[in-house]
Amino acid sequence: MTEPLLLRNVRPWGADAIHMRLSDGAIVAVGPELDGDGAETLDGAGALVLPSLVDAHMHLDKTLWGEPWRDHPAGPTRDERIAADRRLRRDMADSIEQRAGALAAQAVRMGTGHIRSHVDVEPELGLRHVEALLNVRETFAGRIDLQLVAFPQFGMVTNPGTAELMEAAVRAGAEVVGGIDPAAIDRDRDGQLDAVFAIVERTGAMVDIHLHEMGEEGAASMAAICERTRALGMAGRVAISHAFCLGSVDAQHQARLIEGLAAAGVGVVTYAPGSSPVPSVKELNDAGVTLAVGSDGVRDTWTPYGNADMLERAMMLAYRSGFRKDAEIRLALEAVIEGGARLLGIDGLGLAPGCRADLLLVEAATMTEAVVARPAGRTVIKGGRVV
Amino acid sequence: MTEPLLLRNVRPWGADAIHMRLSDGAIVAVGPELDGDGAETLDGAGALVLPSLVDAHMHLDKTLWGEPWRDHPAGPTRDERIAADRRLRRDMADSIEQRAGALAAQAVRMGTGHIRSHVDVEPELGLRHVEALLNVRETFAGRIDLQLVAFPQFGMVTNPGTAELMEAAVRAGAEVVGGIDPAAIDRDRDGQLDAVFAIVERTGAMVDIHLHEMGEEGAASMAAICERTRALGMAGRVAISHAFCLGSVDAQHQARLIEGLAAAGVGVVTYAPGSSPVPSVKELNDAGVTLAVGSDGVRDTWTPYGNADMLERAMMLAYRSGFRKDAEIRLALEAVIEGGARLLGIDGLGLAPGCRADLLLVEAATMTEAVVARPAGRTVIKGGRVV
Repeated sequence: MTEPLLLRNVRPWGADAIHMRLSDGAIVAVGPELDGDGAETLDGAGALVLPSLVDAHMHLDKTLWGEPWRDHPAGPTRDERIAADRRLRRDMADSIEQRAGALAAQAVRMGTGHIRSHVDVEPELGLRHVEALLNVRETFAGRIDLQLVAFPQFGMVTNPGTAELMEAAVRAGAEVVGGIDPAAIDRDRDGQLDAVFAIVERTGAMVDIHLHEMGEEGAASMAAICERTRALGMAGRVAISHAFCLGSVDAQHQARLIEGLAAAGVGVVTYAPGSSPVPSVKELNDAGVTLAVGSDGVRDTWTPYGNADMLERAMMLAYRSGFRKDAEIRLALEAVIEGGARLLGIDGLGLAPGCRADLLLVEAATMTEAVVARPAGRTVIKGGRVV
Repeated sequence: MTEPLLLRNVRPWGADAIHMRLSDGAIVAVGPELDGDGAETLDGAGALVLPSLVDAHMHLDKTLWGEPWRDHPAGPTRDERIAADRRLRRDMADSIEQRAGALAAQAVRMGTGHIRSHVDVEPELGLRHVEALLNVRETFAGRIDLQLVAFPQFGMVTNPGTAELMEAAVRAGAEVVGGIDPAAIDRDRDGQLDAVFAIVERTGAMVDIHLHEMGEEGAASMAAICERTRALGMAGRVAISHAFCLGSVDAQHQARLIEGLAAAGVGVVTYAPGSSPVPSVKELNDAGVTLAVGSDGVRDTWTPYGNADMLERAMMLAYRSGFRKDAEIRLALEAVIEGGARLLGIDGLGLAPGCRADLLLVEAATMTEAVVARPAGRTVIKGGRVV
């Protein structure tokens, strides 16, 4: 039970100002003339109101947020980054809750209401990162919702014992089974996918597989993931993160892959990378494939970039997509909000009566300005309360 | 004459804290123990200090900064953008000084000390935009230095009378002769370049040519510009903006083009586009080609993006280049500051005694943090005074 709140003079996605009555964590009424019934009132003063932002791909356990700056420690390949991650992790084990909590707090400030975070699971680590993130989830309850992915950063087939721990992570509270480059990292596409989907069959968890594999290699992995999703009737519960292969095969092959994603109900998550291919927002959208957006690493051993601001991430996606028109830039913001909600399975994220009272007020004249200018003036509401 | 200022506790590019004595628009002393000699003191409190940022490519006359938001008006091609620009310009003629001034003020706030702005010149407009920008330059004297490029947005060969007006613009005070896609827009590569370099021979102006042309077409234009630069002994005074062709020919051809730029002393300006090829910072750097960075359009009829923040532009260049290490990200910031100074011909931009007292203080722990986080906490010093 939260106290009722009357939110006055807010403009849904930049439309004309209305008022919203929030109660018990939900939007209970919306209109141009609403009585507060004595409820506490917050005057939005014409701010834009959006549903909470969704960060569909973070690595909270790896972040160095709040730590002293350190030079990026890895060489230029994915394998060197994995090795650096493993090496440095050992010194950072004790501070996971503190680092992840600092970044979660930053996400709250930026207006993110829901995060899906991958969490490393493997024999050397056991479930330590998962346990730490479960504590962070508890600490942040009511301010931000965390969904956890049991993530085999260091492979499954090539790192025996990982699959068992991933299943234990799911039983401990992770909602999603991860995976990574089954051909490039495990060199055993079927082996890794067998292991991932076996956990899913036993636990009912969702799936979210990192796929950095480029070109034909990635395309074959994507097709294999779609095939298993169809076979298990898991439409809407499986996602492929990064999906660089979509932008690195020819147009015809890309169209076939997108058809396959649509037919299987497999979603895609992008972080709008700067120097890897960005999946086509319009083509995914036209085909009805769910596209969500995430920060990926934020200031960690993989990358110095990022600030957990999903308005900035929407800007990057729009900028990388060559979007200029309001309607195009809206596609990028909708991927963050509506795509994120669909991909994570969050019901009731919206601005209509009955929806969650998870809202972001932004001091911007229009939706496009909110994205391109990413204003600092924000008010974040979660469960009907200003947080 | 400006009053002396003792700047205490600032960290050059993130190194150990020192003090700086500024007087008469210059840095007169730098060291760990400096006496103020009774000068006014500003405590930097450990802020990073950088030379002023250089924005080497803006279009101040086109910006809508400070205007109500409007949807991007153009179709997806360059020709449609040019047509929309021309159409909308007619309603905006009276407000150029106001709009350009609002954006210049924003650039000052972000820490930019020097701007090169292209300014449209053609028969329909006459010199109106140039005259407006000359007024803005006057208004902002002491806060930011403006260098103007007489820019034939609508072609030269195909828009008779433009060349004469460009020459008149140079005589009125523009330092640079512009150009644009001589093959793609004028369909007469030699015709446009003849006209550009004829003005240069008569006036001694610098050159800065927009080159969006991709692949072999752009490569041929680039080679032609280099050839004319060599023939006229204009090394260091000619720049090619955008240079998309560098990233759209094969690696061998790119290497030959970069050799040609180096041999001719022709510089390159990029805005780190999101969906067009970004020239290779490392390869240009290794070859000794000057690379500068600019905002290009900021919230105008060409693009809704941009905020005149050259720390953000350095971040975009680094992000688009796949840079992660401090030393790599420093290349992007050096392109903004040192590359910009070289390309614009600004002497004495630096942090040593004798350099201009044009400085930016940033609340960041390291140079990389200044770029990736783009902190709002900035103090801008121009000519030895806080502006």
